[in-house]
Amino acid sequence: MASDFEDLGQTVAAVIGLGSMGAGMARSMKRAGLDVVGYDIAPAAIDRFVADGGRGATSPGDAVRGADIIVSVVVNGAQTEALLFGAGGVASVMKPGSVFISSATMDPAVARDLAQQVESLGLHYLDAPISGGAAKASSGQLTIMASGSRAAFEAAQPALEAMAAKVYELGDAAGTGAAFKMINQLLAGVHIAAACEAIAFAAKQGLDLDKVYEVITASAGNSWMFENRIPHVLAGDYTPLSAVEIFVKDLGIVQDMARSERYPVPLVAAALQMYLAASGAGMGRDDDSSLARLYAQLSGAKLPGAAKGSR
Amino acid sequence: MASDFEDLGQTVAAVIGLGSMGAGMARSMKRAGLDVVGYDIAPAAIDRFVADGGRGATSPGDAVRGADIIVSVVVNGAQTEALLFGAGGVASVMKPGSVFISSATMDPAVARDLAQQVESLGLHYLDAPISGGAAKASSGQLTIMASGSRAAFEAAQPALEAMAAKVYELGDAAGTGAAFKMINQLLAGVHIAAACEAIAFAAKQGLDLDKVYEVITASAGNSWMFENRIPHVLAGDYTPLSAVEIFVKDLGIVQDMARSERYPVPLVAAALQMYLAASGAGMGRDDDSSLARLYAQLSGAKLPGAAKGSR
Repeated sequence: MASDFEDLGQTVAAVIGLGSMGAGMARSMKRAGLDVVGYDIAPAAIDRFVADGGRGATSPGDAVRGADIIVSVVVNGAQTEALLFGAGGVASVMKPGSVFISSATMDPAVARDLAQQVESLGLHYLDAPISGGAAKASSGQLTIMASGSRAAFEAAQPALEAMAAKVYELGDAAGTGAAFKMINQLLAGVHIAAACEAIAFAAKQGLDLDKVYEVITASAGNSWMFENRIPHVLAGDYTPLSAVEIFVKDLGIVQDMARSERYPVPLVAAALQMYLAASGAGMGRDDDSSLARLYAQLSGAKLPGAAKGSR
Repeated sequence: MASDFEDLGQTVAAVIGLGSMGAGMARSMKRAGLDVVGYDIAPAAIDRFVADGGRGATSPGDAVRGADIIVSVVVNGAQTEALLFGAGGVASVMKPGSVFISSATMDPAVARDLAQQVESLGLHYLDAPISGGAAKASSGQLTIMASGSRAAFEAAQPALEAMAAKVYELGDAAGTGAAFKMINQLLAGVHIAAACEAIAFAAKQGLDLDKVYEVITASAGNSWMFENRIPHVLAGDYTPLSAVEIFVKDLGIVQDMARSERYPVPLVAAALQMYLAASGAGMGRDDDSSLARLYAQLSGAKLPGAAKGSR
């Protein structure tokens, strides 16, 4: 299907992975005038994209053939590697001079390795993890932590401009963008766990939790994550905006990186155990603020909606 | 010395503890028109207060005799108890109807116990931990997390107004203010440790640390403490604004409270171990951001000024 449109002179962008982030990023690029073709392993995701006016592909190769820009919005490094070099991998069908924009969170060493393999084929690779959530993906307001060659940045420019409010240019080698993203995930993951440890401890003591939220968000104990996630706990609503499993994955990557570099991460290690416990207790696909429910279950603290239990 | 001024009709406030916080709070009350008398166990602190135009006392009892308001700015619950009920304790000389404003961070159970003893003597007790640092103490812009009887709040009003930009009225029983402060300290202590774990990990990977600061403070991984403390690390300047020992104390209180309530605090426990290690390595009286130096020493990460070692 994708090939019908190859010769219109428009920049063609292929988006692989049409989840809440990828679908929004595809929408932003279409709005900016790019010719966007989408693929997802879930046919329903492609159907939604087509119903939304998008152009669907029958396989990753079908999407990528003829594209100037490939935006990979898969889950992790392993999926990125499979997309590029697995069975039906797209590296072999990317057109000369095109760029692979990789947005999955991954170990910087994996990003460096993938970039080297892609570049050895005469193609460009931009290490470009994203931050901002589904709403900002859809409005073209993401933050992108990018590193790569000058040529990769130039080839990616129309897509970056369409998707992001802010592109940090972090260096000329793949891996640096990934490393910045891991530092952010380290802090984000620890802060969510700390916020949950604190709010359930406040509940255990019988404090007025709305007042705790008011006081802490105006005090030195505040974090972006406390401010953003604790309202879910106060509402007792654990509908996943970002799931527990995301931090099982991301803090796992941080812990593995740190182990291989002989760097101690006691706070990451403690937080990861709590994400694992929440996942083990059945909350893996619930909102990451579910750690507050876990602390409540472990201690008898009373939280709004916690009695509903895990799903 | 204090008694010379008893009959002028002004509200008399005694400040016990003239460190950077207490001296600033005394200054704010003087500026607001209160008659302020100060005492500290260190004669040099009294001398500085007198040189600054303050009125010094020869003992806690001398300061408190005739005061309408006593502001206790000592270090912890044990010092507060000694000030009230130890040898030369002031509870026995406080005048009827006067109020004891307790600002030290302490276990809520200790605050409840002290309040009960003070109130049984016909005196008032306001549980009033403070937040904001020396500059805000001096400018009368503190945040105060207060709880106590209506009568205690009323008696304390002139002092609260003079010292604070914001007074949270958190309930009618002592202990609630202390509990709110402990929730804040839990988060603050964990966030400083996480910030230090993250920035030294970034250094270990050779990232541009100024860029890390720029990206993180604009991202979901940000915290009040990351934003406030990491500049000390980037400057390699560990002059104490708040010392490592403060969090050895405060996370120790949180851990003890949590243990007695059968509430697990794995993040607090991990952070406390790092404060203990920093103190054990000789950095106890240095800035709390010294944990970054500790992580660097443990891992070989290169931080600005870290080679200077601990003092």
